[in-house]
Amino acid sequence: MSASADFEAANRSYAATFDKGDLPLPPSRKVAVVACMDARLDPAKALGLSEGDAHVIRNAGGRTIEALRSVVISQQLLGTREIAIIHHTDCGMLTFSDEQLRSKIRAELGEDVDHVPFLPFGDINQSVVDDIQILKKSPLVLDVPITGYIYDVKSGRIDRVAS
Amino acid sequence: MSASADFEAANRSYAATFDKGDLPLPPSRKVAVVACMDARLDPAKALGLSEGDAHVIRNAGGRTIEALRSVVISQQLLGTREIAIIHHTDCGMLTFSDEQLRSKIRAELGEDVDHVPFLPFGDINQSVVDDIQILKKSPLVLDVPITGYIYDVKSGRIDRVAS
Repeated sequence: MSASADFEAANRSYAATFDKGDLPLPPSRKVAVVACMDARLDPAKALGLSEGDAHVIRNAGGRTIEALRSVVISQQLLGTREIAIIHHTDCGMLTFSDEQLRSKIRAELGEDVDHVPFLPFGDINQSVVDDIQILKKSPLVLDVPITGYIYDVKSGRIDRVAS
Repeated sequence: MSASADFEAANRSYAATFDKGDLPLPPSRKVAVVACMDARLDPAKALGLSEGDAHVIRNAGGRTIEALRSVVISQQLLGTREIAIIHHTDCGMLTFSDEQLRSKIRAELGEDVDHVPFLPFGDINQSVVDDIQILKKSPLVLDVPITGYIYDVKSGRIDRVAS
């Protein structure tokens, strides 16, 4: 069975008992979360989020430079006033360099992507610190509390790295 | 209480009973989900995802042009071979134009962002179709099944738009 068929079957169960149909568009807890796309991280479960609580922005690595458009929309149009960043242990972004991925793409897809930054990192603490600073220094981001965490995929625990 | 304090308290409960510490890095269901950051959408609950199942990429609107880096990493390095796109009813991206948001940012932050595309859209069916095509036409994306859905924030239901 394809993933899409699985999704459709699971969604029928979800919708059958759905009782959150009257939530407002702006997040009730006025917070935006920027997290890695990693399959082992469920931000809602790990942070105690219910439907309606928070914007959740996710990409490979949880990189804030790529999340900037979404953060601006979240703050300017939907009223969020706090940001949490979640990177995690054993992240795929620690396993390659731009040069390695570019070589793989050239070999397997025949495409030259020497101009594309894939945003890997070598240190998970530093990546959180860097990504906080990218937001703090951006003139497009409001001066709001920003907290950075590392999620441990072995324990399910978040540890605060910086804020 | 700040959102971060809430997150830390909720996470202590999550970690206390955590039993998913041995999951592999590659998603077990070999699928990447691209969804909107909207607070009312919980992709894991709505699609029946458990920790370890799928990459979940999210941004304002669930726009695939911005998700491209993550999709490439997901496919090239972590073996996903299917994509699902989830846009939704009552999306914030339907409520503004680039010109309106640029004017707001100029007025409130004093910044000129006339060069920045915020990727709003006027039609939720068309945005899904467009975002499937962006992936299908990209030479960096493998020829894999791509299914597009609209999530109904009133009913919790996903409806397949295109594939």
